[in-house]
Amino acid sequence: MTRRRLLLAGFGNVGRRLVEILAAQEAHPGLAALDVSIVAVTTGRHGSWADPAGLAPEVLLERHRAQGGFPDSFGTLEAVRTVDFDVLVELSPLSIAGRGEPAVSHVREALARGRHVVSANKGPVAWACRELRDLAREKGVRFLHEATVMDGAPIFNLGRHCLRGNTILALDGVLNSTSNVVLGEMERGASLAEAVAKAQAMGIAEADPGADLDGWDAAVKLSALANVLMDADLPPERIARRGLGDLDRTALEAARDRGCRIKMVCEASRVGDQVQAAVSMKELPLSHPFARVDGADSVLRLHTDLLGRLLVAEDGPDLSTTAYGVIADLLELDT
Amino acid sequence: MTRRRLLLAGFGNVGRRLVEILAAQEAHPGLAALDVSIVAVTTGRHGSWADPAGLAPEVLLERHRAQGGFPDSFGTLEAVRTVDFDVLVELSPLSIAGRGEPAVSHVREALARGRHVVSANKGPVAWACRELRDLAREKGVRFLHEATVMDGAPIFNLGRHCLRGNTILALDGVLNSTSNVVLGEMERGASLAEAVAKAQAMGIAEADPGADLDGWDAAVKLSALANVLMDADLPPERIARRGLGDLDRTALEAARDRGCRIKMVCEASRVGDQVQAAVSMKELPLSHPFARVDGADSVLRLHTDLLGRLLVAEDGPDLSTTAYGVIADLLELDT
Repeated sequence: MTRRRLLLAGFGNVGRRLVEILAAQEAHPGLAALDVSIVAVTTGRHGSWADPAGLAPEVLLERHRAQGGFPDSFGTLEAVRTVDFDVLVELSPLSIAGRGEPAVSHVREALARGRHVVSANKGPVAWACRELRDLAREKGVRFLHEATVMDGAPIFNLGRHCLRGNTILALDGVLNSTSNVVLGEMERGASLAEAVAKAQAMGIAEADPGADLDGWDAAVKLSALANVLMDADLPPERIARRGLGDLDRTALEAARDRGCRIKMVCEASRVGDQVQAAVSMKELPLSHPFARVDGADSVLRLHTDLLGRLLVAEDGPDLSTTAYGVIADLLELDT
Repeated sequence: MTRRRLLLAGFGNVGRRLVEILAAQEAHPGLAALDVSIVAVTTGRHGSWADPAGLAPEVLLERHRAQGGFPDSFGTLEAVRTVDFDVLVELSPLSIAGRGEPAVSHVREALARGRHVVSANKGPVAWACRELRDLAREKGVRFLHEATVMDGAPIFNLGRHCLRGNTILALDGVLNSTSNVVLGEMERGASLAEAVAKAQAMGIAEADPGADLDGWDAAVKLSALANVLMDADLPPERIARRGLGDLDRTALEAARDRGCRIKMVCEASRVGDQVQAAVSMKELPLSHPFARVDGADSVLRLHTDLLGRLLVAEDGPDLSTTAYGVIADLLELDT
């Protein structure tokens, strides 16, 4: 294994946890073989920093803690074009309005320069999967994105390594944590506003939970899954989408009285040569494997021609789980 | 990919389903790259057959259907020593009394001859994991066994490819289908005898369900998991074991009245340098991820230091799922 020089584009919650894990790398025996050095960090509004000799994780964390940001002002695209790095770690926030930009451009530039990309931002794999995959292939580098769906649970690695010989006929799952926490709180009697406030206090919902509640976040994840696991070419806007809308406690109580729960369900299936997909609110009997997915947990079910139906679920994920998705990809680069 | 010549040791339910899938290989686009030829089949009591030019799947199935067996009488060990093959596919029945023999000897002989082994028999990986793993390494061949636990669900492939960097701190799960079906029937009011008869009619319980009900089958699976995923050296007889015993409907009803269900749970965890493991009957609240595992389904939860807790579950497995586990290993040989 050769040392890989990382360019971190983003230093939010996931980025910081990633760097915290790197700072405590020796506490994890399984990470002995991970040999990385951070040569640059860029952020949207908190400055940037580069050092060809490597920025120590502890120094980055302390500087960010003490001064809220970094001393320089170059942008991500400039860094991707000029810094000498081996792997772009794309950690910038998703922009749905921007159809994945500017992350798509960051990734494209890095691949075009012949550098690997590990993305925790799901925009590039949702809106530009085929283009970026083909570009990576042409340049002989990897475009990996394990942290984009179900935090760091091995979904894309599973598809790559553990389903050989299968065709994925369909997939479905519960993939949006915020809507799931909100539904659970509303089942316990909270109003939508109270439930959202609770999810925010738990650190799960963002300040603007709109994209979670209206199904956009789920649609972007579903697009990523369909594009990669089912070789679809399905941007999020072509996914039928219904979010929580005006769903209220009355509807949840009525479902409960029928022995059911309402969940935001993502579904994709092959129809002829096409893949069709939808995000919708579904009433599920308690015996359904998705009915008991609570809180921030998530589940994905793969329907295959040989293996049958396989479920992968997270039980109590946290920020470390997502940061691990990035580490899994960094380790995957050596395979 | 080069054509691999298979020696099938066993032609029971899983073996026949495997050969049926090979006979219909072109129906599965994902199997286009699988290039195998069966050069010998051995069975315990239904004869054997070998042909260096290959035995066509259709011919094997038709001969078995029409005549109940094969024309020759050489045994598996003789075939392993004398037939020219590339992969031993070990499909013989598990012997708990024999501590995995004679399958352990079949596997040892094949590896010693420098041949790959794909085992659906869990004896070798439970009772002789380290010896066989080291022998395979020394000979530069593979010892694979995806079909031994949770049918063909990718457990060992997941551990090999999808958890890089993690240390597995503990694992637990519901792994024995027969006891799970029996518990479900007893919850619905059946006596133990009626429940067993139902499981047998479903094709899940064997004629002698003793090893399932007393936790032996679960202990053998747990041993395989601990040995491979946690690098333990833990034969099944060193696993604390409590089966259904005299559990009756009253106990199940009392659990239900407390909002719980009783399940046969397998658990292994690190204690210092050791791995300790137990099979026991546990009362679980309905909110527990194992509480809703019904019928022939099974679930495994991995507790890791970085990724957190990951669950893998089967939803409605059948014989094809197990046969797929063998195919997954055959495809894994080329990686």
